[in-house]
Amino acid sequence: MQQQTPKRPPFEDIRDLLAKLPAPDEASADLARRRDADLTKPPGSLGRLEEIAVWLAAWQGRYPPRIDRPVVAVFAGNHGVASRGVSAYPAEVTQQMVANFQSGGAAINQLCRASGAVLKVFELALEMPTGDITEEDALDEASCAATIAYGMEAVAQEADLLGIGEMGIGNTTVAAALAHGLFGGQVEDWVGRGTGVDDSGLKRKHDAVSQAVGRLKRQHGDAPEPLTVLRSLGGRELAAMVGAILAARFSRVPVLIDGYVASAAAAVIHALDPAALDHCMFAHQSAEQAHGRLLAAMGKTALFDFGMRLGEGSGAALAIGVARAALEVHTGMSSFSEAGVSNRDKKPG
Amino acid sequence: MQQQTPKRPPFEDIRDLLAKLPAPDEASADLARRRDADLTKPPGSLGRLEEIAVWLAAWQGRYPPRIDRPVVAVFAGNHGVASRGVSAYPAEVTQQMVANFQSGGAAINQLCRASGAVLKVFELALEMPTGDITEEDALDEASCAATIAYGMEAVAQEADLLGIGEMGIGNTTVAAALAHGLFGGQVEDWVGRGTGVDDSGLKRKHDAVSQAVGRLKRQHGDAPEPLTVLRSLGGRELAAMVGAILAARFSRVPVLIDGYVASAAAAVIHALDPAALDHCMFAHQSAEQAHGRLLAAMGKTALFDFGMRLGEGSGAALAIGVARAALEVHTGMSSFSEAGVSNRDKKPG
Repeated sequence: MQQQTPKRPPFEDIRDLLAKLPAPDEASADLARRRDADLTKPPGSLGRLEEIAVWLAAWQGRYPPRIDRPVVAVFAGNHGVASRGVSAYPAEVTQQMVANFQSGGAAINQLCRASGAVLKVFELALEMPTGDITEEDALDEASCAATIAYGMEAVAQEADLLGIGEMGIGNTTVAAALAHGLFGGQVEDWVGRGTGVDDSGLKRKHDAVSQAVGRLKRQHGDAPEPLTVLRSLGGRELAAMVGAILAARFSRVPVLIDGYVASAAAAVIHALDPAALDHCMFAHQSAEQAHGRLLAAMGKTALFDFGMRLGEGSGAALAIGVARAALEVHTGMSSFSEAGVSNRDKKPG
Repeated sequence: MQQQTPKRPPFEDIRDLLAKLPAPDEASADLARRRDADLTKPPGSLGRLEEIAVWLAAWQGRYPPRIDRPVVAVFAGNHGVASRGVSAYPAEVTQQMVANFQSGGAAINQLCRASGAVLKVFELALEMPTGDITEEDALDEASCAATIAYGMEAVAQEADLLGIGEMGIGNTTVAAALAHGLFGGQVEDWVGRGTGVDDSGLKRKHDAVSQAVGRLKRQHGDAPEPLTVLRSLGGRELAAMVGAILAARFSRVPVLIDGYVASAAAAVIHALDPAALDHCMFAHQSAEQAHGRLLAAMGKTALFDFGMRLGEGSGAALAIGVARAALEVHTGMSSFSEAGVSNRDKKPG
């Protein structure tokens, strides 16, 4: 008779990964810092562009860093809670927008073209919405772990810079529930109008988040651990983004996180280990007010704020353009001695 | 005997221009707004990207707007006040950096390449610094008017989107003096470290601005008109930028203004007539603290803040990339009906 090994809880693999996160490549980062100091500009005068060049070197683990294969990965999911009237759009728009991505007509297609990035769209069982989080867990542990694993497989191997975005009618409600579940505070701290829900929809959204987090605590206790919060309140695209962000760390791919919903996925990782997001930058601060609060709760500052609230990885795609410019500056500029420009301390030799 | 006509004061031509500024093309702007409303995204969800598309249409005076010939114009000048030890760099760096621009080794060369813009550099009598503004007017009225006229001729005809930047050792001192002369407040409101001057240099800079504005008022009265402030406290690159910004309006070229010094030139125009800047956007908010204050004094909000303080048109070049992305989105996206995506109010036909 065959002996049966005790079944390993599905989330254990993820906890194992978190225990062995690769560190930044300080040698490459130092080479970037050293070259930056010798470029024909006052030290620090390019601000975050300088930071981006060092970050790319540190997390690609090579010098010079390169952006040859930037990818924007958009994960799409459907949500039981959408039936609660929390969005300005009907749930079938998730599928319709995925088709729009595939035919090239969405904002993200144009933004990827503008920044020379490849768009990859991942549909996550759109025909099978997650559980309505006001009443039940969105996913069981096995499905959530499998979706995280799917996200891990999805993209990291093919990219040298990865933008992370999403599509899913109802998912700013899910993001708000996750943020509230992870960081506490008041419901209204985390709930906004998303795609533009009206006053009565906003009220329904508020109630849904309140009910969902109340249920989470009744069902999983007052301090549920972050992966439990994810499966209880999240959705498939959120779980997949968690996987993609973590896998990128192991594949040495720096990550640009898009808006509120993608940041809510990142917040799950932050709650597990803040250092697990060190390879990530936050592309933009969304017009969804709660996003600024969520970034602040994680101690992060987005690269820019264009008042956008679209999702789809739109901010991440724009940030890839900024990262390209930062890298052009870093690799293409002359040093003081090459250019014959007087530096502060010494004349050029 | 030939009768002599009375000599026309040099600034009169500029005042004449200000009296007949072209208005925005509301028909083109409306076409842009109408298309934007029909694109497959929630209304307003692309924030400032939407604003940029409408702005391009309004000020290019055509629909659809295009970005086929973006130009970054960098005006370089030297300043008598540089001899007061107000900069971290010696005055000869202005000329050396111009050579660096010409050989392609500066930050602005890489940033223009990244955003597909043409760089044009204009040297303004670098061998002949303006008067030391702590002791005398920078320029007489005729020279200032001629330099404004030079700026007018320089670029507008060739561009369909114009970035405005500058290079000039000592010119954040000049910008601070202009801002203080135009907007009042305290000296320390307007003085920062520029390229990175040390504490004693900062003190000298503070004193220089204080002396220069004191002299302005003794010499030209307590409320000198803005073009007098310009010639008294400004410099050639500032005057040329004033000309370039105004000429762009007449040539239907929208303008992206770079950092603190370029904004100080724009502030002269603002003081003459705030509406004369309606065809301009401010690319970025500089790390030079006073820039935020100057933008606020003009009621402007920069597109982004990357903590940059380089000048050279660097922020304007980056903003051209953002404008390109905004235009790609506007022209390339599908409408709801084309894409078969359900809109809020109606299902797709």
